[in-house]
Amino acid sequence: MIVFYTEDIIGDIATLHEAESKHCNVVLRKNPGDKVQLINGQGLLAQGTILSQTKRSTSIQIDSREQFPTAPFRGIAICPTKNMGRFEFFLEKATEIGINNIYPILCSRSERKILKTARLEKILLSAAKQSVNFHLPVLHPLQKFKSFISEIQSQDSDLYIGHYQKENPDLISFIGNEKDKLVVIGPEGDFTEDELDLAKQSGFVSVNLSKSRLRTETAGIVASTFICV
Amino acid sequence: MIVFYTEDIIGDIATLHEAESKHCNVVLRKNPGDKVQLINGQGLLAQGTILSQTKRSTSIQIDSREQFPTAPFRGIAICPTKNMGRFEFFLEKATEIGINNIYPILCSRSERKILKTARLEKILLSAAKQSVNFHLPVLHPLQKFKSFISEIQSQDSDLYIGHYQKENPDLISFIGNEKDKLVVIGPEGDFTEDELDLAKQSGFVSVNLSKSRLRTETAGIVASTFICV
Repeated sequence: MIVFYTEDIIGDIATLHEAESKHCNVVLRKNPGDKVQLINGQGLLAQGTILSQTKRSTSIQIDSREQFPTAPFRGIAICPTKNMGRFEFFLEKATEIGINNIYPILCSRSERKILKTARLEKILLSAAKQSVNFHLPVLHPLQKFKSFISEIQSQDSDLYIGHYQKENPDLISFIGNEKDKLVVIGPEGDFTEDELDLAKQSGFVSVNLSKSRLRTETAGIVASTFICV
Repeated sequence: MIVFYTEDIIGDIATLHEAESKHCNVVLRKNPGDKVQLINGQGLLAQGTILSQTKRSTSIQIDSREQFPTAPFRGIAICPTKNMGRFEFFLEKATEIGINNIYPILCSRSERKILKTARLEKILLSAAKQSVNFHLPVLHPLQKFKSFISEIQSQDSDLYIGHYQKENPDLISFIGNEKDKLVVIGPEGDFTEDELDLAKQSGFVSVNLSKSRLRTETAGIVASTFICV
């Protein structure tokens, strides 16, 4: 199923812009009168008919709508990796698996301190379409660990921090219920003791994700798998 | 911890060849008398001392050995993806997570029909070292679905086939025990009805991996996560 994405819907008229319009008109050679499907990234799946096309936009009459309910909050907070391809792969996989909130965070030992999001948003959209997920994950702005921790505390979620220690419970022992959940994944050099202490004082449960030592992006994918079950 | 890999161990003398020797002598500038760690990919972790170096090989005296026990059989059979990078990513992640047997298979709708393994073996080795896994996964030769099914049947493993159907049990409902396990993941175009029938007649349980539609390599990683818990 090929679907197009737009947030620009006023009454019964939807407008595709730029890349989505080009994909519709140039790549797929759709014409006025053709039937198309639309999503807005917020749970809407609409059936429509192309009204008119210009070089950079496509106007669509909406014929019917279906609104899909929001899934429970499933969040991953993660330090972007030095190798951007690895972080992009995490974003794609987390989206496919069903994560709906991604918080890039900056820890003391983070190797990447700046994050350009334009390309990342495209990866999220493409993965959401691929997995027929009508809710586009929210990619929050990069923020420091400390401010993230104080922000997320106000939310009523089960909070976990992935940090292997023999005495830790496994993340898998907490899964399978509908409660909101978030897991924090550290940088390649791991969290500092201060960061771990702050998280624990703030109500995060320290958990093991796997028997093996995982790379940052692998830890993110494994944590996504468990909390989206 | 940097470890070197060799299968060439005779008595107390280990020899590094080609890439591993170059990494030791040129990249890390090790010299005779330096202490090093070795793995053989079959559970051995050895401490040794460099005896001599030539252009393409390094001779090492083994001082002590530790043998790590074999984990239960954890297998994934999977159709290599059209995009090789996606398959390579699966191999890396499956190895990190703890899969020890990988069976590339050829289904009716497989998009990739030939597999060159030299580069893939390097990815497995690098991922095994990264995750401090002393057992290198076995990458079996590419084989047709039918012959794979008849071969694997003779083994006493729990066998699963990942194919979403509303009435299927979730793979996660079978995890957490020490029994040998294998999951088959289909090609981008999915299994044919004949393939599904053959698998079911051969004792495979049809399971759901996720609530979402997953790409082949994502399905492989998610299945790995569940059976390696």
